Amino acid sequence: MNAPEPGFTLGPNSYGKSGIRLVHVDRATARHAIRDLTVHTALAGDLDATHYTGDNAGVLPTDTQKNTVYAFARDGVGAPEAFAERLARHFVDTTPSITHARVRVEEHPWTRIGDHSFARGDGGEIRTAEAAYDGGTAAVTAGVRDLLLLNTTDSEFSGFLADEYTTLPETDDRILATAVTATWAYATVPAAYDTAFDAARTALAAAFADTYSLSLQQTLYAVGERILKAVPEARDVRLSLPNRHHYLVDLAPFGLDNPGAVFQAGDLPYGLIEGTVRREAA
Amino acid sequence: MNAPEPGFTLGPNSYGKSGIRLVHVDRATARHAIRDLTVHTALAGDLDATHYTGDNAGVLPTDTQKNTVYAFARDGVGAPEAFAERLARHFVDTTPSITHARVRVEEHPWTRIGDHSFARGDGGEIRTAEAAYDGGTAAVTAGVRDLLLLNTTDSEFSGFLADEYTTLPETDDRILATAVTATWAYATVPAAYDTAFDAARTALAAAFADTYSLSLQQTLYAVGERILKAVPEARDVRLSLPNRHHYLVDLAPFGLDNPGAVFQAGDLPYGLIEGTVRREAA
Amino acid sequence: MNAPEPGFTLGPNSYGKSGIRLVHVDRATARHAIRDLTVHTALAGDLDATHYTGDNAGVLPTDTQKNTVYAFARDGVGAPEAFAERLARHFVDTTPSITHARVRVEEHPWTRIGDHSFARGDGGEIRTAEAAYDGGTAAVTAGVRDLLLLNTTDSEFSGFLADEYTTLPETDDRILATAVTATWAYATVPAAYDTAFDAARTALAAAFADTYSLSLQQTLYAVGERILKAVPEARDVRLSLPNRHHYLVDLAPFGLDNPGAVFQAGDLPYGLIEGTVRREAA
Amino acid sequence: MNAPEPGFTLGPNSYGKSGIRLVHVDRATARHAIRDLTVHTALAGDLDATHYTGDNAGVLPTDTQKNTVYAFARDGVGAPEAFAERLARHFVDTTPSITHARVRVEEHPWTRIGDHSFARGDGGEIRTAEAAYDGGTAAVTAGVRDLLLLNTTDSEFSGFLADEYTTLPETDDRILATAVTATWAYATVPAAYDTAFDAARTALAAAFADTYSLSLQQTLYAVGERILKAVPEARDVRLSLPNRHHYLVDLAPFGLDNPGAVFQAGDLPYGLIEGTVRREAA
Repeated sequence: MNAPEPGFTLGPNSYGKSGIRLVHVDRATARHAIRDLTVHTALAGDLDATHYTGDNAGVLPTDTQKNTVYAFARDGVGAPEAFAERLARHFVDTTPSITHARVRVEEHPWTRIGDHSFARGDGGEIRTAEAAYDGGTAAVTAGVRDLLLLNTTDSEFSGFLADEYTTLPETDDRILATAVTATWAYATVPAAYDTAFDAARTALAAAFADTYSLSLQQTLYAVGERILKAVPEARDVRLSLPNRHHYLVDLAPFGLDNPGAVFQAGDLPYGLIEGTVRREAA
Repeated sequence: MNAPEPGFTLGPNSYGKSGIRLVHVDRATARHAIRDLTVHTALAGDLDATHYTGDNAGVLPTDTQKNTVYAFARDGVGAPEAFAERLARHFVDTTPSITHARVRVEEHPWTRIGDHSFARGDGGEIRTAEAAYDGGTAAVTAGVRDLLLLNTTDSEFSGFLADEYTTLPETDDRILATAVTATWAYATVPAAYDTAFDAARTALAAAFADTYSLSLQQTLYAVGERILKAVPEARDVRLSLPNRHHYLVDLAPFGLDNPGAVFQAGDLPYGLIEGTVRREAA
Repeated sequence: MNAPEPGFTLGPNSYGKSGIRLVHVDRATARHAIRDLTVHTALAGDLDATHYTGDNAGVLPTDTQKNTVYAFARDGVGAPEAFAERLARHFVDTTPSITHARVRVEEHPWTRIGDHSFARGDGGEIRTAEAAYDGGTAAVTAGVRDLLLLNTTDSEFSGFLADEYTTLPETDDRILATAVTATWAYATVPAAYDTAFDAARTALAAAFADTYSLSLQQTLYAVGERILKAVPEARDVRLSLPNRHHYLVDLAPFGLDNPGAVFQAGDLPYGLIEGTVRREAA
Repeated sequence: MNAPEPGFTLGPNSYGKSGIRLVHVDRATARHAIRDLTVHTALAGDLDATHYTGDNAGVLPTDTQKNTVYAFARDGVGAPEAFAERLARHFVDTTPSITHARVRVEEHPWTRIGDHSFARGDGGEIRTAEAAYDGGTAAVTAGVRDLLLLNTTDSEFSGFLADEYTTLPETDDRILATAVTATWAYATVPAAYDTAFDAARTALAAAFADTYSLSLQQTLYAVGERILKAVPEARDVRLSLPNRHHYLVDLAPFGLDNPGAVFQAGDLPYGLIEGTVRREAA
């Protein structure tokens, strides 16, 4: 059996089950409702023994964590943030060896097309939620991923720093396209997580659409600020915005002009703009 | 230089450019419109020389094919079926060595959220179109891919053949979920490709939603027939329907029943049902 | 219940289970051996009833097909071609309603690093096999997918056809890179499928490496011919070769030359060269 | 123009270019050598203005960062760790507004099959490197990703904690399979990054293969410790080990036993074991 040797030690660690696919059907009325989630759990605590000697006495199996997710869904999952918190609290509060739990939930959207029929909705974007709990107050975040947005105009990029490796021309009109990942942390619990999410999601798209952009950073800040205004319970917003470049195609070799009509959507490489917008202490 | 040796010969072949990413912006009014396409070209003809000896005199470069796609988009792309046909005709009609062209187009949907702002729409599904042309009549097909549909009830599966390897229990109520790939071939040109596509897409989703299903094959047939009724110009419909299994989770070990509430969405393996529905000759 | 209406009829169809993940461990000696497969089944036959009325009496469930794959692996899988044929024959020979079976197998390679330890091998490429059976002689093919090959020189592309949309410059030295998909059909059964596969795989890579290429088509033909020479039982070879473009980066703006040193590996779009090389009848 | 409103402020932020695909060919001798990299840059510093008002005076464009990567490769890239550090230092040392740079490099392996011919090697695994620089000492890490390893035996899992949701049976013999992500941080610069990487990579695979495992955590610790022993310059090792479950298939319904022969390779969900092994201060 492997034993720790002098000179080495275990650092931060966690374990859990990832990719737990859960669909809940609410049949309370003939008009069914569904929630389609992927859940990820990660637990930490007094787990030195299993690392050093393979003594698993403190290890709640990841299979058990999966079972718990399904069992907890029996009477409905509700908002993903609340479901994540309910699970995180359970693992810490009922398992002596576990002192920290982090549960992440991804919700796959469906749009109703009948009483019990649905089509994948909202462009394939994913709603995200996370709860981290260590016995005190749960830290809850909400967010969205893979939300594709595009403006055909009202975007410039000029006045930037130029060094010996700079060849990019300035532009006063470009396509601005991105796949938004946004996460906002709740300082206080909103009245309803679903309502707060909808407000943030609406503010996000609106801010992207109506901001005249001089840089994607400016758009990022505008989006973050708008979310914080829309959701008073949110403390800060983290945004990750890939800049999905659209290159104006040079049609001159074919005797054609190209007045902002034909673009090549780029793939790799892409810009990546990341930032946080915070509510300032009074 | 490599030369063909006796005893070997070239069989069917084609070449082209795949993954041409094209975004067209229509700025005719302040309310911009966009079409976001991925185009694939494939040409064939008198191309033995390049295979046998590397003589490229008959080879129109794939780079040129890409340029052509962008140049042809200068004044708008229109319906993807028409754009595919326009390109296919061009390659054959203007290039002596090329006798066959097949152009495939995928359209990525965007939903308007402002005069010049868009969000990825329609659940991420992709509209497809293809034109094959050999100097005669162009063969045009239209379709959809990655259209996710789910019914929470009105689906049974029983009365099936059982052999010594059969363990599947019969069920009179299951979730039916799939990611539709459908392709319909036009016998005659519809008045407007976009209108015909919308009619087919609507019929498809409606047929899935309102068919009481005894097998996914039955649903497939119902969907195909409904598309043919909705689009009189279509000759046949090919459908590929993965059966995205949803397993009812056994909660009994936890003292809970599970009246069709909690499902594990399966990933691999999945059923795959494929078939064609044809309009019958009178 | 849905019934076929006059004017419509069922065309070609099949159904089966895709993505059956099977790992077989041979523990005959302390030096274990493994085969790691993904299996796909597709059956066809007298299946009108399930499409028209949902009568499943002739439907062997896809779940049963999956069970059969696992049961048949109990005593070893052997070469993937033979395993595919064994399964295809079983489905047709024992199921009255099933007249055609096609079984595809993908093998994921592992390299031995200990008596019972393995690392994923061979660059992640996948060996493929397929057997189609309709009660007569089984049609068996073998192949490879995602085999990445790259030559840093000995590749030209010039003398091509130029039209009004051609801007590509000629080159007498370029990187040639591709991800090979090759499939060869057996006219007769080789003495050992594994040996034949190894001979074909070796011939393929060698032909790519030592062919001075004037076009990717020429390389395709050379590769196909070489495989046919190496495997006398093979009737023809189908090849699909994406041209993974590597663009020489223009370093002149930075006061640097670029003598074939620095390349941008392109992603989209890519060329796609497809063709068949056949053994000619005497 | 968007301006910051009272009550909101910018938090941590960075920007850069991701997915810069670079292939360098060394033609110093007829026996060419290549390095195939994907580079990601991320810069931070005095960038409030572009977020608040779109003033880009301090913004070195991500396009310039890309150009710099290609220009710096002109005379060879060397070890990816050194290339990352060279770039990180450049951005900070030559750009007044930039105070922090983080450059990540992924190396795609190729195996030589000829003087100027290569096949993708090493099972598709990716070597990783990162350098972070803020004007002081650069922090350099190295690692590997997607290294697939599998043991067919010498793995148990028993003696674990059981609560009301636990149904997992204990096992004294299972397949242990994972896709390793490992990252080790250098406390001091090794004599040669490539040599140190090879030593770590070898130690990693060997430790996985020869550790009799009572839990994946135990394997994780053993692997980490072994890397630290093999690379004295490494301070700590972070490991992320998905537990790719292999389920023994129940063949009893078919009258067959299954003595560890036939497994279903699972996909979702999977266990995820993450941890750090540190060198202890003397």
